[in-house]
Amino acid sequence: MYSYSYLLQFTSAVLSKMGFSENQAYESAKVFLAAEIRGHSTHGVIRLGDYYKLWKAGRINVNPKVRIIHETPSTAVIDGDSTLGMIPAKLAMETAILKAGNVGTGWVAVKNSCNFGIAGYYAMMALEHDMIGMTMTNASPLVSPTFAAEGMLGTNPIAVAIPALNQPAFVADFATTPVNRGKFTIAAKKGEKMNLGFAQDKDGNPSGDPTILEKGGSMLPLGGDREHGSHKGYCLGSIVDIFSGVLSGANFGPFVPPMVAYLPLLEKTVGDGLGHFFGAMRVDAFRPANEFKQSMDEWITTFRNAKPALGQKKVLIPGDLERESELKIRETGICLIPQVSDDLKIIAQSFSITFEENK
Amino acid sequence: MYSYSYLLQFTSAVLSKMGFSENQAYESAKVFLAAEIRGHSTHGVIRLGDYYKLWKAGRINVNPKVRIIHETPSTAVIDGDSTLGMIPAKLAMETAILKAGNVGTGWVAVKNSCNFGIAGYYAMMALEHDMIGMTMTNASPLVSPTFAAEGMLGTNPIAVAIPALNQPAFVADFATTPVNRGKFTIAAKKGEKMNLGFAQDKDGNPSGDPTILEKGGSMLPLGGDREHGSHKGYCLGSIVDIFSGVLSGANFGPFVPPMVAYLPLLEKTVGDGLGHFFGAMRVDAFRPANEFKQSMDEWITTFRNAKPALGQKKVLIPGDLERESELKIRETGICLIPQVSDDLKIIAQSFSITFEENK
Repeated sequence: MYSYSYLLQFTSAVLSKMGFSENQAYESAKVFLAAEIRGHSTHGVIRLGDYYKLWKAGRINVNPKVRIIHETPSTAVIDGDSTLGMIPAKLAMETAILKAGNVGTGWVAVKNSCNFGIAGYYAMMALEHDMIGMTMTNASPLVSPTFAAEGMLGTNPIAVAIPALNQPAFVADFATTPVNRGKFTIAAKKGEKMNLGFAQDKDGNPSGDPTILEKGGSMLPLGGDREHGSHKGYCLGSIVDIFSGVLSGANFGPFVPPMVAYLPLLEKTVGDGLGHFFGAMRVDAFRPANEFKQSMDEWITTFRNAKPALGQKKVLIPGDLERESELKIRETGICLIPQVSDDLKIIAQSFSITFEENK
Repeated sequence: MYSYSYLLQFTSAVLSKMGFSENQAYESAKVFLAAEIRGHSTHGVIRLGDYYKLWKAGRINVNPKVRIIHETPSTAVIDGDSTLGMIPAKLAMETAILKAGNVGTGWVAVKNSCNFGIAGYYAMMALEHDMIGMTMTNASPLVSPTFAAEGMLGTNPIAVAIPALNQPAFVADFATTPVNRGKFTIAAKKGEKMNLGFAQDKDGNPSGDPTILEKGGSMLPLGGDREHGSHKGYCLGSIVDIFSGVLSGANFGPFVPPMVAYLPLLEKTVGDGLGHFFGAMRVDAFRPANEFKQSMDEWITTFRNAKPALGQKKVLIPGDLERESELKIRETGICLIPQVSDDLKIIAQSFSITFEENK
């Protein structure tokens, strides 16, 4: 078990050693740690290894000029200058919030970026300003459009955070696929078959083989098959891809660059790096903030009190599980599997710093 | 078979007879007809009967003062004054487009409205302005949140229209459920069972009974069950409900009023009527319009040329089927089932106008 503050300090130290400024390192480390405490460890410090290897391969710019390259009163485009995704992402959300303060809403597209951690982190930045926050990002192609047998889209998540008054905020943060890729890795490690509805083989036949993605297979969009609405999941993933990739001038669809150093950069590009999209809407640009937040309290209470299905204890509000995870982990600490702590030790050694186990 | 122009003129005449101005009647009739030619006849002239009965019950205001009640440079809230949904919806999208022209984007919430037809119609209004259009609406509660056994959300559709250069526009228009309600009606009429993944009984057990909604059952969100990501469909439906209902000050969730005259208005309300949400983003608020649209052409071509799954002919782009339907129906005419044409005859008689068959 590790404490939040120790892993925050360690992650921050590693990023500093790579060459990021102290502030950039610390602010980015907070996003890694947010994934840990919110129970999404697949986006937590486990990813430090990927970034480290990308950095060693010269694919992460540690002296970036992250800047606004175009803007209107309610929009902006930011060039991430090939750096850690967290840096342009945070600036983008701050810019969206600033613009929403001025004209009611703000919408910012980012190009030339890489993975930015959990989408929900940025959406939630809007909450303390009494704003609704939105985040999307495209990602390396793994997901097949309906009727196709080829990974063309990323798991392209959407996060929406909506403030309430006395109730905790509504925070939805979800990939536009039935499950995330981690589910395949876990099933493969356990030697288990998966149920159908998550993936297909290279010809487009339903597959329960958890290693199918390494055999030319692809993930299915939310909905699974056409009969159960996979074309709607395909629409969602496409919208995220276009808002993140095409509006910003980043790469889209199959041209999104791989975010692991063992895969070479693609020969063909149609833009710069990968792309994100951020939005902030001041709730009082629509209704008085207190009135809106009271109404959200009532929305949340109404849905929380919906009649549970037989065998279920309660109906959840988006964000409940992450908040419960945070409460628990703040108390018990963060658990890292040996593969991750071993990885962190190796990274620490290479920078002549220490990684202390169970600190 | 009926011609587009005959049904447009007839629908317009009926709405005029109800008391709407000539312009309101004609502009609203166009939305009914757009549903017909785009192949979504469930939202076409079949609905005229519902509106007629709501009008007879005094639940549709034919002399509405539809007006902006609050605004900022990039947002507005419109009060629909209990009229036909098409009237405030069109004003809302026009307002969003106007604001986008001024400050880059425009976002408009509508309260005190009723059903507005197909969401895609309004989103597509943005296209000719080189803008991305978005539309959402809440609707009467039929859909259960994950882990619940109670209809709390409508089928809450989302439409997003994105302009391209030489390719036809990307137009996604989909309910946040695997199927629409019409699928149940059709299966029930044919006496067929449905596959699982669409509905559950009153206790939350999976059900293939097409009449289950009349027996206390509920529809499932996109994803079907928790394992296949129904919590993501629940998130989507909730976001649509909150943007449409809570931001505007309309009713939300289970309090959305029924849009058929045979169901009484609910005793408890938490706002005014039902709600919609509209958005417009100028593409040149992000990138030069031509550059963006060229990039969209490339996106569309890339996805259209994805490798088809075994047994599939081609991969579709959102909007393809509707465009094909429109081409076909403009040529062959619109087919109405006898129940619908009989209904239209009765409405015509009550207004002393004629409805000519197969005109």
